[in-house]
Amino acid sequence: MIRLPMDDLAAGERQLDAEQARYVVRVHRLRAGDTFVAFDPKRALEADGEVLSRDRVSWRVRIGPPRAAAAATRSVTWIHGCPKGDKADAIVRDATELGATRIIFVHTARIVAKPPASRVERWARVAREAARQCGRADAPAIAIETKWASALAVDAETRVCLDPRGVPLRDVLSRAHGSIAFAAGPEGGLTEAEVDVAEKLGFVTCKLGAFVMRTETAPAAVLGALALFS
Amino acid sequence: MIRLPMDDLAAGERQLDAEQARYVVRVHRLRAGDTFVAFDPKRALEADGEVLSRDRVSWRVRIGPPRAAAAATRSVTWIHGCPKGDKADAIVRDATELGATRIIFVHTARIVAKPPASRVERWARVAREAARQCGRADAPAIAIETKWASALAVDAETRVCLDPRGVPLRDVLSRAHGSIAFAAGPEGGLTEAEVDVAEKLGFVTCKLGAFVMRTETAPAAVLGALALFS
Repeated sequence: MIRLPMDDLAAGERQLDAEQARYVVRVHRLRAGDTFVAFDPKRALEADGEVLSRDRVSWRVRIGPPRAAAAATRSVTWIHGCPKGDKADAIVRDATELGATRIIFVHTARIVAKPPASRVERWARVAREAARQCGRADAPAIAIETKWASALAVDAETRVCLDPRGVPLRDVLSRAHGSIAFAAGPEGGLTEAEVDVAEKLGFVTCKLGAFVMRTETAPAAVLGALALFS
Repeated sequence: MIRLPMDDLAAGERQLDAEQARYVVRVHRLRAGDTFVAFDPKRALEADGEVLSRDRVSWRVRIGPPRAAAAATRSVTWIHGCPKGDKADAIVRDATELGATRIIFVHTARIVAKPPASRVERWARVAREAARQCGRADAPAIAIETKWASALAVDAETRVCLDPRGVPLRDVLSRAHGSIAFAAGPEGGLTEAEVDVAEKLGFVTCKLGAFVMRTETAPAAVLGALALFS
């Protein structure tokens, strides 16, 4: 379903502005009679919309009654060893779209970049934008921790450390209820010492899939698996 | 676990060449005693490795007995409306890493780019490279179809069409056995007519997660969910 940002969302007919019309008609090929979802990013509202017709200068649409966008209902913490380059942005987007409520980037033994604490503001913006695009009213909290053990000190009923040496993730997810936390390593993975620390802190070491996942694939794959149980 | 490409993989001690040493020591911070996996991309072999020591000019490692890399064991077809830009490369990488055995890009009503048939060769290269990096001996077959119904004419015991109007994916995955096919739309989603065609061809319309997934997130999230059942 196409999602179209629209300020001052209200029920009734309206004309699309030039940018909206371009997006709906040129980019996404909607025709009269096609439906879309309009969302108001500032107020976390959305509404069903329908393309009506094209008059001389623009496109008219009908907007249904606005409703509140949904917020995440489960506490899901995603802890990730700081990745290189713009992978962190992709991780924030994927984790937001798939329901994470807190994202913690952490310095680990094998990270190759140490993002400054100020990077948190950028990631928070990425998270807010991703939340709007995916129809989510809230956005995850973002933090950086410089110590592995500090990042793992989260309050969660189920804790999972992702590592190829672990048990199948299904064993843990199928009986997990309530709040949950996942910890994943950077490109080079976690050291054995880091996995040991996680296990001492109550994390169960789990793996997903038959092959090696890149660090940036893990949030979508693991939170996609978690979404089966929501 | 760090994966290190190594031609002519054989058990025994050897010196890393300059590029390998840079990758292992500078990029991934391995130290003497740390372990890694060496893989031979040409022969689909891999072996455990251990960093031994640094002599005057390079690093010595010990390589264990080579073993065959694993291939996908389940027939998984991923059908995707042609996305914009380089998202197709990312889709190929994610789907390869998470076990797809066939990837079909298809022209749909709302696609905005029609990649030429020659693009298949590029995607096949991306798939082979992704397979090597993730420790997979085989790589998915890649195709482009210009008709939705032709793309959906795949031989699979379970068929899933991904759309926000569907039933929870869990209902279908938990009882799916054997070969499976997934069909996903491009950025603007599938039209109602396309979903109808899919249903007539035996696809069950399913959704995953509480929020709207971007088209490029779907393969990792859905195949991550499928990996729970493998």
